[in-house]
Amino acid sequence: MTMSGALPPSVDDLIVQLARLPGVGRKTATRLAFYLVNHRDDQAPRLAEALVNMADRVTLCERCYNISEEPRCPVCADPARGSGAVCVVEGVTELQTVEESGSFHGRYHVLHGLLSPMKGVGPDELRLDRLPDRCRDESVTEVVVATSLTSDGETTALYIKRILEGNGITVTRLASGVPFGGTIEFLDAVTLGKALEDRRPM
Amino acid sequence: MTMSGALPPSVDDLIVQLARLPGVGRKTATRLAFYLVNHRDDQAPRLAEALVNMADRVTLCERCYNISEEPRCPVCADPARGSGAVCVVEGVTELQTVEESGSFHGRYHVLHGLLSPMKGVGPDELRLDRLPDRCRDESVTEVVVATSLTSDGETTALYIKRILEGNGITVTRLASGVPFGGTIEFLDAVTLGKALEDRRPM
Repeated sequence: MTMSGALPPSVDDLIVQLARLPGVGRKTATRLAFYLVNHRDDQAPRLAEALVNMADRVTLCERCYNISEEPRCPVCADPARGSGAVCVVEGVTELQTVEESGSFHGRYHVLHGLLSPMKGVGPDELRLDRLPDRCRDESVTEVVVATSLTSDGETTALYIKRILEGNGITVTRLASGVPFGGTIEFLDAVTLGKALEDRRPM
Repeated sequence: MTMSGALPPSVDDLIVQLARLPGVGRKTATRLAFYLVNHRDDQAPRLAEALVNMADRVTLCERCYNISEEPRCPVCADPARGSGAVCVVEGVTELQTVEESGSFHGRYHVLHGLLSPMKGVGPDELRLDRLPDRCRDESVTEVVVATSLTSDGETTALYIKRILEGNGITVTRLASGVPFGGTIEFLDAVTLGKALEDRRPM
């Protein structure tokens, strides 16, 4: 009664790979795979090429760890983005959400994760080590910690506050416009903008 | 206020390609792209490879037009599948749904579309031309038309009935267990099995 028996191995493998994407179950993966089978002469190779290009070209910005195809990401390369304030974000998705809010005009620092005692994620696994030196080198006066208001986000915020203490840097946190327990990724731009404007010293 | 300005071109292009998939909007495509960016060393190349393999290897069965990596698809290559009955389906998705029902043990004929006067799809654009010859060559006694009970599905069924008339072939249609206006693709296996069992001459 399984459908796999009648499917070519290469289609089966494509379904398996698609089903590994977040939010994509076996049923959706099958639907996408059949669509790609029907478009195997145009869209399938184009998507494959886009994946290979992305994997070949994307690297991390040497300064802020944002994704980039150049040594410096578009934000760091933009002379209009002041170095006075640095916004610390969990990942690239969160950086984009802050950008969309239009309320922050400084640079970023992308952690690529959050500290998590529960999951065993310590400071060495995040891009935290260079943050204090970076703040000194770039004469940063304010670090806005824009991590989620979850347990791991708060733990990370407190850790950042601690490693920057005594450097004359104001460490601020998003205002509590962010719903408690909510994550930054899915926040609407207006709420996030408000939270950025209402940020408070911690 | 758009996020594109800050995204590397190769990531932007990946989002564009993903957003072309059915049911995937810009927001979902962005989420999937960031996931793949974070997994650019393992899952992105694996998905690309699966796409290329599928596009290289998948062809259509020379007999029934099902997808296959061999000249004959797994159903046609299976000696246990009798040639007495042929089930005509819109596409590969519908073939898989019929297979899942476990109620049909003959071979298939995959149209890769439906006749549609509204969309201007005529018989020449479907895999219909060889059906009468096929029925003669394989001594087919029954053709089960398992197209959707939509306007295009009914048009296609009537057309098939007409081109097979006078050949001594019984043309049957799925029983009306299928909800009117519904499509075959999303039907549950039990209802489809019942409809296959209750198929009636047309």
